[in-house]
Parts: sequence; C-alpha cells; structure tokens
Amino acid sequence: MPLTEAQLAEIAVQRKVVGTTRRATVPALEALLFTAVPLLDHGFVRVIDYMGDDGAIVQAARVSYGRGTRRVSEDAGLIRYLMRHRHSTPFEMCEIKLHVKLPIFVARQWIRHRMANVNEYSARYSVMDREFYIPAPEQLAAQSAVNRQGRGAVLQGDEAAEVLTLLRDDAARNYDHYIHMLNEAPDGTPADEGRRGLARELARMNLTLNAYTQWYWKTDLHNLLNFCALRADPHAQYEIRVYADAILEMVRAWVPAAHEAFCDYRLGAATLSAQMLAVVRRRLAGEAVEQPSSGLSKREWTELETLLGP
Amino acid sequence: MPLTEAQLAEIAVQRKVVGTTRRATVPALEALLFTAVPLLDHGFVRVIDYMGDDGAIVQAARVSYGRGTRRVSEDAGLIRYLMRHRHSTPFEMCEIKLHVKLPIFVARQWIRHRMANVNEYSARYSVMDREFYIPAPEQLAAQSAVNRQGRGAVLQGDEAAEVLTLLRDDAARNYDHYIHMLNEAPDGTPADEGRRGLARELARMNLTLNAYTQWYWKTDLHNLLNFCALRADPHAQYEIRVYADAILEMVRAWVPAAHEAFCDYRLGAATLSAQMLAVVRRRLAGEAVEQPSSGLSKREWTELETLLGP
Amino acid sequence: MPLTEAQLAEIAVQRKVVGTTRRATVPALEALLFTAVPLLDHGFVRVIDYMGDDGAIVQAARVSYGRGTRRVSEDAGLIRYLMRHRHSTPFEMCEIKLHVKLPIFVARQWIRHRMANVNEYSARYSVMDREFYIPAPEQLAAQSAVNRQGRGAVLQGDEAAEVLTLLRDDAARNYDHYIHMLNEAPDGTPADEGRRGLARELARMNLTLNAYTQWYWKTDLHNLLNFCALRADPHAQYEIRVYADAILEMVRAWVPAAHEAFCDYRLGAATLSAQMLAVVRRRLAGEAVEQPSSGLSKREWTELETLLGP
Amino acid sequence: MPLTEAQLAEIAVQRKVVGTTRRATVPALEALLFTAVPLLDHGFVRVIDYMGDDGAIVQAARVSYGRGTRRVSEDAGLIRYLMRHRHSTPFEMCEIKLHVKLPIFVARQWIRHRMANVNEYSARYSVMDREFYIPAPEQLAAQSAVNRQGRGAVLQGDEAAEVLTLLRDDAARNYDHYIHMLNEAPDGTPADEGRRGLARELARMNLTLNAYTQWYWKTDLHNLLNFCALRADPHAQYEIRVYADAILEMVRAWVPAAHEAFCDYRLGAATLSAQMLAVVRRRLAGEAVEQPSSGLSKREWTELETLLGP
Repeated sequence: MPLTEAQLAEIAVQRKVVGTTRRATVPALEALLFTAVPLLDHGFVRVIDYMGDDGAIVQAARVSYGRGTRRVSEDAGLIRYLMRHRHSTPFEMCEIKLHVKLPIFVARQWIRHRMANVNEYSARYSVMDREFYIPAPEQLAAQSAVNRQGRGAVLQGDEAAEVLTLLRDDAARNYDHYIHMLNEAPDGTPADEGRRGLARELARMNLTLNAYTQWYWKTDLHNLLNFCALRADPHAQYEIRVYADAILEMVRAWVPAAHEAFCDYRLGAATLSAQMLAVVRRRLAGEAVEQPSSGLSKREWTELETLLGP
Repeated sequence: MPLTEAQLAEIAVQRKVVGTTRRATVPALEALLFTAVPLLDHGFVRVIDYMGDDGAIVQAARVSYGRGTRRVSEDAGLIRYLMRHRHSTPFEMCEIKLHVKLPIFVARQWIRHRMANVNEYSARYSVMDREFYIPAPEQLAAQSAVNRQGRGAVLQGDEAAEVLTLLRDDAARNYDHYIHMLNEAPDGTPADEGRRGLARELARMNLTLNAYTQWYWKTDLHNLLNFCALRADPHAQYEIRVYADAILEMVRAWVPAAHEAFCDYRLGAATLSAQMLAVVRRRLAGEAVEQPSSGLSKREWTELETLLGP
Repeated sequence: MPLTEAQLAEIAVQRKVVGTTRRATVPALEALLFTAVPLLDHGFVRVIDYMGDDGAIVQAARVSYGRGTRRVSEDAGLIRYLMRHRHSTPFEMCEIKLHVKLPIFVARQWIRHRMANVNEYSARYSVMDREFYIPAPEQLAAQSAVNRQGRGAVLQGDEAAEVLTLLRDDAARNYDHYIHMLNEAPDGTPADEGRRGLARELARMNLTLNAYTQWYWKTDLHNLLNFCALRADPHAQYEIRVYADAILEMVRAWVPAAHEAFCDYRLGAATLSAQMLAVVRRRLAGEAVEQPSSGLSKREWTELETLLGP
Repeated sequence: MPLTEAQLAEIAVQRKVVGTTRRATVPALEALLFTAVPLLDHGFVRVIDYMGDDGAIVQAARVSYGRGTRRVSEDAGLIRYLMRHRHSTPFEMCEIKLHVKLPIFVARQWIRHRMANVNEYSARYSVMDREFYIPAPEQLAAQSAVNRQGRGAVLQGDEAAEVLTLLRDDAARNYDHYIHMLNEAPDGTPADEGRRGLARELARMNLTLNAYTQWYWKTDLHNLLNFCALRADPHAQYEIRVYADAILEMVRAWVPAAHEAFCDYRLGAATLSAQMLAVVRRRLAGEAVEQPSSGLSKREWTELETLLGP
C-alpha cells in the first residue's frame, strides 16, 4: 500500500474541509481531490489543486469579461478548433498541481518536461522511506530484439525468479546500508553512540534507482497534454505510461471537452510525411503503390501500412 | 471609465456565482475577484482566478500529505527563510490569472517576462476599441538630464498643452482612419458599399502605440514577484509601475506572509557588491573612507551613499 | 534601402575579419554571415552568429566524444529519424543569432515565441528612425469574407490609393510630431531652446504600429523550426511570413540535412485526426465515403478533401 | 582516469581540426576546447562549443551593426553596469555547450536548472559503464549538527573505513548484477545462451545513485552564471560545487570582463534585507545596536555579523 494509515487520515481530514469560492469549480474533479490513485507497487498520483475548466479555455481565447452565455456545444466546438489547429495558449490557462510518488528512474524521465514547477522531497534534508519498485512478474520483459529501447517477451522460469531476487535483495541491502551509514534513530539521535553517521547528502548515493521519491508537480493543461501525448504513447516505458494514463483520466474529469479533442486530434491522430501523403493520394487514385517506388524507406513503409491497415 | 455598463454587468453577474470547493481558498482575494482596479485613463487589472495560498508554499516545501497543523507563525517563518535564501520553487506552487487592459507600449515591456501564459485580444481577428492613453498633466515629464532612460521635471504651460493636443489628435485621427479603412459597420457589413475594406490584420498598423489592448495573463507567484521587483522599482516607467503596484496589493491580499517577506528581502533590500561590503566594513571599523580610495566608481559611491545615508 | 551607407560599411569591415577556430564551421553559412537580406520596404534579417551544424545534432544524440567517423548518409538518416519521431533535444544543440529589423506589429507576433533570447532597440533610451512599413500595392488586401483573420482580394483603384495615402500620411505625421515633442537635435541638445522636450519613454507612444524596430534574436534550431512551421505557414500573416521564408533559406545553408527532414516531416506533412484516418482506411478499402457518414464536420471534410485531392 | 585511451585519441584528433570563421573567436577558450577537466574520481567537464564573447554582450546591449570600435575599457564598464543592474538579456547572447560526466545524484540536482538544453546518455538504449563515485577520505563527512542539509566533521577510523567499503561493495555488486541481468556480451549477443536478458530499461533500476552518467548540456551565459552563483556557493553540496568551480574557470577564459563583474556583483556581493540595512545605518551613525533591538532574528543577526565582521 503506497500510503500509511497516518497519511490516509491526513488526506481524509483535508477532504472534509469545504469552502466557498467564486472561481470556476469542477465537481467531477473535486470528487477526486487529494485521493491517491495507486500505481505500480508503492507509487501514486493525486490531484492537490487545479485552476480553470473547459470554460476557462474559451474565455481566454475570446478575452471575455465574464463566463459567457454560449452553449456548451459552442464551447466544445471552439475547443476542438483550437486543438485541431494547435493553438496552445488557451490551454495554458488551466493549471493543475499533482502530488506524485514514483521510482527515481521514472522521475529522471519525467523531469525532462521542463515547463513545469517541481518541489521534490529532499534526500539532502530528510531520510528516504524503505520503498523500491519491483516489477510485477508480467512486466519482467526481455530486451526487444527489434527495438533498441523497447521490451520483448516476458521472462520466464528461473531467469525471471533470479532477476526478481536480485532486484529485491540489492535494493533492500543498499537501503539497509544507507540507514546503517546514516546512524540515525527515528528521533534524530545516533542509533549507535560510537559512530557519528554519514551526512545524508552522501549516504543517499547508496540507494538504487528504483527507490521511490515524491514531488509536487504543477503545470498547465497544454504542457500536461504534451506530457500525456509523449508518455501515454505505446513507445513510452511502461513504468511512466501508467502515470500518464492515470493523469489522462484526471484530465477527462477536469476538462471533458479538451480531453475529447485531445483524443481525436492528438492521441488518436497521426502525422503523415510529405512522401506518405503522396502515397495515399496515389492509392486513392487507384494506383497499386509498392514500397520501392513509394519514396518511403522500408521502416516508414511499414509504419504507413500499420497506420492504414485494416 | 475603463469598462462599459455591459461589461460591469457581466462582472457583477459572475461575482454572484458562488460554488463550493475542497481547494485552498483565500477570502481576502475572493473579495477582490473579477472586480477591475482602474489604472491610467482607460486601463485596469483584475484577478480572474488563483491557485494556492501561503499554506501551499510551505506544503510544497515540505512535500507534505495534508495541509499540516503547524501554527501560522511557523509557516511565516519558513516563508521568510525561503524568500531570504532565494528558494524559488515553493513560490512557483501558487498561480494567478489576471485580466489586464493596458496601452500597447506598456504591453511591449510586459511581454518580456517570458515565464507567463498570455492570451491577447487579437486585432487580426477583431476590431480594436477607440481608447488610447493620454498622460495626466502631472505625468507629462521632460527627458531626464541625468538618466538617458528616465524622466525629469514636469512640462509646463504651452509646451505641455501642445504635447497633449498632439498626442490626442494623432491618436484620434489614426484611430478614425483605421475604422474608415476597415469600412466595417458594427454588424460586420460594409459601412460604405462602394469599398471592400482593408483587412483587419493590415489596418491595425495605423494605430498608435498608446492604443489600449488587453490580455489574460497567468503566471506563478515566483515570476509574479520578479515582475513586481522589476516593475514596481522607482526606475521602471511610471505607466507600467502603476500596474505592478496594483498587483502587489493583490499579492498582499492573497499571500500576506509571502508579501511581507518579499517587502523585507526583495523590495526593501539592497545588494552590496564585494567592494561596497569592504567599504562598509572599513567604516564600521572606524575608518573615514573617501571615494578615491574606496575601490568604487563615482557612480557606485553615490549609490552607496544614498543607500546608507540618513 | 534598409541600411545606411555607414551601416553597410560597418558590415563590410566585419565580414573581412576572419579568425581560426576548432569549432564546427559551415562554409555555406559563413558566406551569408552579417549580410542583410532585405525584406518588406525597410526590414531585413541577417545572421550574426551560429553554433553547431548537422553533425552537432547527431553528436548530441549519440553523446559522443568526437565528431565521429560515420558517413554523411548515416547522419542524415539519423536526423530524419529524430525529426520523424519528434525528438526535440538534439536539435536544441544548434543555436543561431539573428539581427532583425521589422515593423512593430510584426514584432508583437514574433515575441510570442518565448523560447528565445531578445535584445530590442530601446525607444526609452534612443530615438527611433524615420521608417515605417507601407504595404506594396499587391499586398493591400481586403478583409477575407470566409476567414475572420485572413485576407481576401487585393484592393483596387481609389480605395487602394486612399488607403496608401492614409497609411503614409498618418505614419509620417505621427513620426514628425514625435520628433517635435522630443525637441532633440541630433547632437542631443534641444532643437528649440524654449522647450524642454518630452521624455523619450513618453514621446514614443505617438508612433504607429508600422514603425520599424530592430532586435538581436537568438534561439536554438528546434525552436527556430517551430517558428518557421508556424510563421511560414500559408495562414500566417504575409508580413511575418516573408521573415520566416528568409530564415528557412538560412537554415538550408546552415543544416541542410535537418532542413530536408523538416520539409518532409513538418512543412510538407499533415496531421490526420482519428476520424480522418478512419475515412482514409474506409476509402482505401473501396468504400465511397460521404461527409454525412464520415464522422467529420463539414469544415474538416473540406480540409481532408484538399489534403488528399489531386 | 575518466576517459579511455580511445576517447582521448578521438579528442586529440578533433583538437587538430582547425577551420576559419567570421564569427567572434576567443583564443583563450579555443585553447581549452574539447579537453576534459577531470573532476571527482571519474567525472569531467569539457567545452564542446561556444557562441559569442564579451563583445557580443555589448553588441546586443547596443543593438549595433558591427563589432564596434569602442575601447575594451568602455566595453568592460558597460558590462559592469549591466551586471550591477541585473540586466539579464545581453548576457543571454552568449551560449556554451559542455560535455559533462557526473554521478547520477549530482545530475539530479543539476537538471533542476531548466533553462538549458540537455541530451543525456540513455540507459534505455545503451549499457552503462562500470563507474561510480566513491568519495575521497577527506570528503567523507558526518551529518552537520547545525545544518539539516550540510556536512560536519570528517569521519575517522573504523567508521570511515566501513562506509567506504559499503559504498564500494554495494555499487560494484549492483553493477555486476545489472550486467548479469542484461546478459549481453559486448557484441550484443547473449552472454549466456540459456537466458534472454532483462530489458535495458528495466535492468538499469538496479544501479546506484553514484553511478556515472553523462550529457551534453548547453545554456546561455546568463543562466550559466545563475547556475554558478547557486552551485559554487559554499552551501552547495561539494560534489556539484567542483563542477561549478571548474565551469567558472572556463567562464574566466571565455568572457573575462563578464567574469570579473560576476565576481564583484554576484559571487562576492551580499543582499541586505530592509532590516539589515537599518542596522547598518544605525551603526554607521554611531549607535551600538544589539540583536534584541535590531529587528533581526538571531539567525539573521549572526548572518549579518559574519558578513560585516573583520
């Protein structure tokens, strides 16, 4: 379970506090507020705060004085237009803040999205929890034979068992040595009077990359959707994809019209190169185009076949 | 008056809508929400939305699970510490959205603050209002004799009168010609059937730089304070300073602890160079330092004198 | 002519200075260095400095120790792969600095590209030149009847003549009044001893939006291509498109492989929505799809027809 | 030694290639180009490319047409003025690209500087080297008793020896298990035919945070100086400070005038709060101020004493 009883209680208390506001509110997202969505074996993502709704997108696009009296269908139409034509600034008018617990190797991918605000739990200042990510057996994949940065078949039998044992033992041992070197009792005094204890900022280097960290992460809807487009993609590593998928469900509750437009014009869409478009035109005109005369490389040809196949 | 009756009515309607939320709310800022603070002759700034409060700053700095049970004084102490040591990320956890109406030459300075989200009223798409900034007589300053980018004494008599007339006439004439070239009646049909009307994206080039534009502008507290530090400074041009001053009052209502820390450690603070610090140390040790032996240029010497003088 | 004799001489002198360097150099871009490409009636763009070449893109993608010994064709293949899969960071490894002279209303669109470094000529500090953009007759377009932010047919006869006269007279008069209010002789003394002269930061507001400004603008190749994708698009306003087109020619000289990949995978490519892809699949399977049963709006249907038509 | 013979040879080859350019060149930085400055036990930083020099800063500040004919002393004076008054944009006109090899826990601090371009060696795609950071004995510090995120006295005797053994053994074992799980011979075939090998993107999670990674990192001078101001500070962790110190030496070779101004107005300077300034004024006026009546907290009082003490 990713959260302790004390943390769950703290969240429950916070969920009971309700105030009044003149700001746009989204009941479907309010219902999710603060509650942790568990991910992987010890991770989670939860919404801490948000600003704006579907209406805020159209309000900004129109630079209007009030919330407007247009019908929902008109607003949705405008949102679809903005998404289709890659107008990014109206989507930047919505903001969301998440609290995320995630393995460090996932955090290192995530942080590459620069257009966000981050406050991470500091291992210079505090002691890390004894939690590390161990893949579920069905995620224990072999290296892909065709893709240098992908996964192949799931490992089986002895090999799988050995890998799990190594990952578990190494992470546990390194964590225990980390605590030993710190020599800190929970109340901050030395655990062993005969030792001074290694500085936290040094001891942390003994942890493994599957140790869990956590942060507050805040970004606008435009950059959030960029994150989802990249990280909910089938080519993204599974361990970050589960976070992107969970966030997309939050987006659906928060800004349903923007979510639908995003699914149609980004997630489910595909970009065809100049050469691919030429092939499609020829085929629609009745020509039986083959790869050698297509102007496409074999790799691109396969991509196009996959895209347009039945 | 910067807003029309219809706009004021729209705002009044919006202010009456109150919802419930689990998010942090700030009653002092809720009281200001949507209401336009008039600035210059036709400008304004108004808060459209906000995220977070003083508590959100400390919550992120601690990466905590709930709102916490610390006392307000502890939180204020932490906020002062963070501000003093230039920790920027916790302040990025608060976000505000403003609707601003401002002269174009002010907008051109403002937009240089890149870490913000902007949606501006489009003169490619819409017709601009007949509003332009004319300085109040007490703001009609001569060029400074000592500062190449500052103001000197206020213009008087005939010269002042002539300047005001030129500014008014030129802005009005150019706007009227803009409308004439557009040849658009308020309902979008041609005002004069014999003409086609110049494209909006072209006609706008006839407007003067004191024409008013407006935008939705959203940024986080850290970048907002950077804006205020630069633009509420006495060296900033008066016409943007009034906006920064008004925004600082909003910050005071929104995050009072952060506002106080900002006043003490940024607005009211001063940075002393290595050489200035050496001079202060020598003087505190009883030495009567003069400029030639100070290691400071005359200009820096004067700056230091001003800073430390009675 | 956009540059004075003195400026041309200064550029000629600078072009004669040649040094040696261990850095990657691009002879085709060196040949263009500093020379102004004239645009519109008084504008220009010229390359001031650059960092990197096609090789720098692949070097960063491989995080290699030297320039590598791969063949040019391998590098081009990798660049095409990176562009096709929207890997942005390797393209960020190339940087370019431009000196641009452009009308203020164009500068206001341009500055929206935030991921760039800008130093603009300051009208608070200096006096502006007497130059303003007047469209060539063939660019004097009417408002489009079908696109709220586009141009229609070219204005003719009296209407065109009147528009040109208004634009010219208003810009000239406002500039002359600007100079009059400044009351500054070229040597900085008052032109007219009886007046003090209005502060530069105020007088500038009388200028029109077609007055020319200039700036140094520096950005990386990834963001430069984003700029070009948006501003070289047929929907961009003509007056900024000419700058994007000129910059694309510089890109072709600088990083020919990246330029070719950009043309194939961005400029000449098209994104098909989920619904559009479904239509194409049905048509390729022999079905005669019509708009009502296509799942596309009429507008999208037309866009798809245009895209796939002969 | 941080580089292999093959890498050193590749660098030597690259250093021999000299071309001609019209761009600004800096001989003192050319002399350093490509050569790795060794840091920690296996790390390094080396300059890969640069754009601009001291002259580029003033050229942009003046938006001039050529390199200008001002004397070096005038340029240095302007650079000092710009630095003193925190004008950031002229310093953004210089750009530098570094190749850095660094422990992952250092990389995680470094990446927080968002205004930079990064290409990191990918452990999804490639196999990591067998290199991890082990502190030198004199860096093996205890946790500070007064600063929650600082170091205290150096560990001695058995405790030091045990810590070193644990760090070494755990990193080595985890790396060896990483390689075992990968089951990849150097030529890419399975090392052990009976196993499929764990996917690289999974196996990497077994590495420790002191494993070395490497990246190409590119940023502008303004953001580079921000990095140095924060990371060359005595409060920064030693393991990142050595990188900042080495980079500052590169800055000194590259832009000597900017470097000197930075040392005087940033590194060696101090910001005094409103309350601190009041104390200094009272003391300069002859008053013997004590902490209780100073308006400063005990902590701030100590900071001020340290700053102004002999």
